[in-house]
Amino acid sequence: MNVTTPAIETDLTRMFAPRSAALVGATDNTTSFGGRVFRQMTGFGFPGTIYPVNPRLKELNGLTCYASLKELPETPDHVGIIVSTERVFDVLGDCAALGVPFVTVFSAGFSETGTPEGRERQARLLAFARASNMRIMGPNCNGVVNFVGGFAMTSTAAIIGPRAAPGNVGIVAQSGGLGQINVMWRAMEIGLGISYQSSGGNEADLDTLDFARFMLRTDETDVVLMAIESIKDGEKFKAVAREAAEREKPIVVLKFGGTEAGSRAAASHTGAIAGDDDIFDAVARQYGLIRVDECNHLYETAVLLRRRRWPKGRGAAAVSPTGGNIVQVADAGAGFGIEWPEYSKETQAALAQLMPGYGKVANPTDMTSAATGRQDVYRSALNAIAADARVDMMVPIFASVSRADLQRGADFVDQCDKVAAMLWVGGCTDDAAYTPKTLIRAGVPVYRDATPCMRALRAAVDFGEYVEAHKSGSKEPQRPAGIDFESASAALRECGARLTEREAKRMLAHYGLPVTREALAASSEEAVTLAREIGAPVALKIDSPDIAHKTEAGAIRLGVHGDEAVGKAYDEVVAAARRYAPQAHINGVLVQEMAPAGVEMMLGVLRDPVFGPIVAVGLGGIHVEVLKDVSYRAAPVTLIDANAMLAELRAAKLLDGVRGMAPRDKAAVADLIVRLSWFAHDFRDAVAELDVNPLVVLEHGARVVDALIVRTGNAPTLSLRGTA
Amino acid sequence: MNVTTPAIETDLTRMFAPRSAALVGATDNTTSFGGRVFRQMTGFGFPGTIYPVNPRLKELNGLTCYASLKELPETPDHVGIIVSTERVFDVLGDCAALGVPFVTVFSAGFSETGTPEGRERQARLLAFARASNMRIMGPNCNGVVNFVGGFAMTSTAAIIGPRAAPGNVGIVAQSGGLGQINVMWRAMEIGLGISYQSSGGNEADLDTLDFARFMLRTDETDVVLMAIESIKDGEKFKAVAREAAEREKPIVVLKFGGTEAGSRAAASHTGAIAGDDDIFDAVARQYGLIRVDECNHLYETAVLLRRRRWPKGRGAAAVSPTGGNIVQVADAGAGFGIEWPEYSKETQAALAQLMPGYGKVANPTDMTSAATGRQDVYRSALNAIAADARVDMMVPIFASVSRADLQRGADFVDQCDKVAAMLWVGGCTDDAAYTPKTLIRAGVPVYRDATPCMRALRAAVDFGEYVEAHKSGSKEPQRPAGIDFESASAALRECGARLTEREAKRMLAHYGLPVTREALAASSEEAVTLAREIGAPVALKIDSPDIAHKTEAGAIRLGVHGDEAVGKAYDEVVAAARRYAPQAHINGVLVQEMAPAGVEMMLGVLRDPVFGPIVAVGLGGIHVEVLKDVSYRAAPVTLIDANAMLAELRAAKLLDGVRGMAPRDKAAVADLIVRLSWFAHDFRDAVAELDVNPLVVLEHGARVVDALIVRTGNAPTLSLRGTA
Repeated sequence: MNVTTPAIETDLTRMFAPRSAALVGATDNTTSFGGRVFRQMTGFGFPGTIYPVNPRLKELNGLTCYASLKELPETPDHVGIIVSTERVFDVLGDCAALGVPFVTVFSAGFSETGTPEGRERQARLLAFARASNMRIMGPNCNGVVNFVGGFAMTSTAAIIGPRAAPGNVGIVAQSGGLGQINVMWRAMEIGLGISYQSSGGNEADLDTLDFARFMLRTDETDVVLMAIESIKDGEKFKAVAREAAEREKPIVVLKFGGTEAGSRAAASHTGAIAGDDDIFDAVARQYGLIRVDECNHLYETAVLLRRRRWPKGRGAAAVSPTGGNIVQVADAGAGFGIEWPEYSKETQAALAQLMPGYGKVANPTDMTSAATGRQDVYRSALNAIAADARVDMMVPIFASVSRADLQRGADFVDQCDKVAAMLWVGGCTDDAAYTPKTLIRAGVPVYRDATPCMRALRAAVDFGEYVEAHKSGSKEPQRPAGIDFESASAALRECGARLTEREAKRMLAHYGLPVTREALAASSEEAVTLAREIGAPVALKIDSPDIAHKTEAGAIRLGVHGDEAVGKAYDEVVAAARRYAPQAHINGVLVQEMAPAGVEMMLGVLRDPVFGPIVAVGLGGIHVEVLKDVSYRAAPVTLIDANAMLAELRAAKLLDGVRGMAPRDKAAVADLIVRLSWFAHDFRDAVAELDVNPLVVLEHGARVVDALIVRTGNAPTLSLRGTA
Repeated sequence: MNVTTPAIETDLTRMFAPRSAALVGATDNTTSFGGRVFRQMTGFGFPGTIYPVNPRLKELNGLTCYASLKELPETPDHVGIIVSTERVFDVLGDCAALGVPFVTVFSAGFSETGTPEGRERQARLLAFARASNMRIMGPNCNGVVNFVGGFAMTSTAAIIGPRAAPGNVGIVAQSGGLGQINVMWRAMEIGLGISYQSSGGNEADLDTLDFARFMLRTDETDVVLMAIESIKDGEKFKAVAREAAEREKPIVVLKFGGTEAGSRAAASHTGAIAGDDDIFDAVARQYGLIRVDECNHLYETAVLLRRRRWPKGRGAAAVSPTGGNIVQVADAGAGFGIEWPEYSKETQAALAQLMPGYGKVANPTDMTSAATGRQDVYRSALNAIAADARVDMMVPIFASVSRADLQRGADFVDQCDKVAAMLWVGGCTDDAAYTPKTLIRAGVPVYRDATPCMRALRAAVDFGEYVEAHKSGSKEPQRPAGIDFESASAALRECGARLTEREAKRMLAHYGLPVTREALAASSEEAVTLAREIGAPVALKIDSPDIAHKTEAGAIRLGVHGDEAVGKAYDEVVAAARRYAPQAHINGVLVQEMAPAGVEMMLGVLRDPVFGPIVAVGLGGIHVEVLKDVSYRAAPVTLIDANAMLAELRAAKLLDGVRGMAPRDKAAVADLIVRLSWFAHDFRDAVAELDVNPLVVLEHGARVVDALIVRTGNAPTLSLRGTA
């Protein structure tokens, strides 16, 4: 169900902030969907004109009710449709006739039914949108909320009561309940303000990425939270992510479920192992999105990220006037890769004056009795530590203290030069109404527990790093020297439907991948000659497009040396192949250098229906197949990405020279990954799957010993779009 | 710093609920520690007599103030001491003279200072307690709170205001701030009631386990939450855990920090790899404790566990009137090993009637429009699903609905035959004051987010399984047949300070471990004879107590066959050993059968300062050393434990027959683990560390190919205590 929408970009301002809006299906019955949406439209302080449309009513809530859209005195910017499934297209026809730019179809009965009729109806809706040039939200959706301009067209129970003040957090969802209750309502409950919210339902036309892009472009939004089940368009995803980095507005994304295993062919190892979620996760990381696992993580992370300040590094300092929380925050931070640097000599000297008799002060810092009842000492310590160049982030900790002390702590956090978050685990001793919500409302980042605090700091670190990399251009994939698409493409044109190992490696060699020296022998005599040229020992392998699994066929001999042995091996390999597959076309026998011993890796390429060509990397043997220790990125990748892929592998330390072995050439592997990713990108229409297995990694360099390429049957195409 | 306290068991009732209590160092200055503690003593509704002691005051808060304990009209049950460090022992002397049974030393200046004087002072405190027969809490602690009887002797700011009603949650901590703010205050904030709370500080005498045991034994406590940095006594830990299972009152434990790496010798692989936290984690699991990572997890888990109802299995059903939360709850549950079984035919039939036209209903269940605005349909569906025998746990989901609907949901959860928890992600649409706290106060388990809900359900599953196993006796370690301690012990007595491979394996053979057939040759002729007896091929290995690393010495030959080769190998091995260690005493050369090829594992034993002998299991090669894929348990272990150890290994599937190999004999490995654990237990004073590396696991059986035993120098001792 991954239909790629043509990448039309429309300014959605008049959808979220129409001058006038109509609701077809408005009623006064607030137990009905139409009644609930109408109540929100009229009760949310909308400054524009509202046109209820319902042929059975003359008047609604003091407003003239119209029998049809055609009778309206003007063309509304945004029309909501709540009618029976059958009538949706009639109303859409009216909209098109009037030239309505934006329509929200609340009605259900489309692809969510899972029926062929429903799917066909949804396809028709998209076709209608394209033909009429209208942009359509939904169907089966719950509309939009605009806290900035006071427009709500939605049935949600989450905005009952007086309209809350707007804030700088945008929220994008597919599900109405999840986006509006679990994220929006809960975010407001802890004190966050919202700018815009959308619940796009089935997303026939406009999708979460369109809404996220709109919000990113508004001055009122500083962070966008997305709760989604699927992404329709990988290229649009990348473009929106780049825009988020450009504008330094982070996107935090919760994505669950929707495993569509089996949608991908699986002739190669790579194809068989990858899960959709692994790929989404990898691409989100590659493009600087902050991924979280739960709805509450979304808004908890936004409490810090909405300030749009990024730490210069991973070093944090936590300071507590009591000891108990120090250990917990240290552990929680370590779990998120937050570092607790030792303080500089200058800082130590300043702290020694504040805490006489305590010797060297550790980080995280327990102020112990030196700060008991002495908030002035505590604040002086905070200032001394914040001035330390090793400290990028500050976490002052408060248990249960007075309102005045808490307020001073909040002021410190708010005004600190470094990125700061307050960890306030207890209550206010002299004002029960003074709560974390009080401070979050005032824009201060406050956390009640160490883990969400550390998660948010890590998110700020990650996004900051991404923004830096983006600014420096090092996130723009660069085509390495020594790539020859024309020759690789010509080589592919010479191949049949199924490529042999030799053909696959020849193509890869044109992209600068170091393949084993090898040549094809058509007779045992030729094999002997070739073996002499290559140098003993050699490997002999059957070369046949019809035998993909040479080992299974027994048509392979390794470590052969000597003329007689080579000649005999040739005959044996051919005989084994004939036994295994009597009908197979045999090109001959590949005579190949034996690669030196090294660490075996596997590189692969697969095609994701959303994100296109994906590169996969893992250690060889059990690591990929049994332990599923593989990392992914969308092709093409940068050198930063390639190194990150290697670092992500649990087995990465096997490359560092364990058990007395010399370290392996990781730089060569990273370069190979980049080259392979360009191959994957350039041949994305022609190559369905690819395995390099094994890649033998040496102390210096690496060698592609075997490779498998599965064609799509399409012609090779080189993208001229450069980086994507 | 792991001093083992003699296991004195004292009934602590009169400590938590004294008839009379004195506070030495009471003042009227509430900014001082003594003033704050006195305020809590007098303001918490204590029904007994309070005696303030302070020579500078005549009267305090309307109570007569005494110059010293000696002047009191009676001997108090519990005396609190807040005096300068120097004066603590004087006051303790007064307590002893009066025969005071319980003392809490709030004063600091003991081992927490990290100074030799402080440590010496703490040792003196313990000696004083033992000599006087008093039980002492602290020093450097924050006392106890008893919500049941209304007694508080603590300085905490967490119980300011009117005393809250008691509940059934006991809380034990070392740190005052953490236990009283992060756990107790926060638990009360979400609506939980507390029975007892203790913050034991340095724990010279009474420790967290004593307080936990007291709480477990009170009728008022149904679950105990522990926030700790260390455990002093492994045997007491096991005893308290057993009592918790016996009473079906779960202990939830948060333990952090305190890595004391380096406290353990590391001559073996096993010793070098284990972290203290890995071991605590494994032993907690082995003994049925629920371990969590954060303070909030403690009380969140208690929201369900306090009901003391255990699911019969792992099958849960979640039902939502809206779709959005279904995917999230399914994902979160899967992450905790919660299963979502397909409903039975009967249930499907019942649901088909309630949701006409929806076909087969999935679990978790989206009621979709069938339940929109129809809470009667929703409740009928809940009842139908709860009646399904495949369902062990029920999770009805609510977004934002009316008070009446929420109350009916709460009633369902409260009265359901199955273990049930309510997931309420939104608000109450018609009563803002009706919140999750309202329901938690009423005893209903309510969660706002899927993850804590699933974490609590999994905790209930785990504890239920543990209680079942405990009841059935299968958690009592059983000594397998064929263990011969006397012969193993006699063999050890014959060994020198350092055991050779042959000696180590001989000892293990007496415990029924299947070692390779082997014998010692003193000459090349003897080696040839032995090799003929054993059958070719054989391995030859130097046998010397002075050469632990035979491979490094080059004093090993594998796969040798033929008389000539064996004789030559003998000479080479001896020559290599002489070159490597000219001074080494050489017993001869071990001639050994070559084990058939199989999956290589590593079993080990190490000694933990708290938990005693620990068994470790991992796959061989990189899995243990590089990937740290090892599981631990305290010896002796049950067969359940041994199988759980194997299941925990990431690489466990290598035993299941991957890549075309036949499955390996896991049952034999589990039996071996049990035997090795008894060996570790029986020789815990004599054996410091032990490696079986490799253990070769075959399709049928397994073979100990090499073993290393590091002695402590103590004599072997067999425990007669049976299981511990």
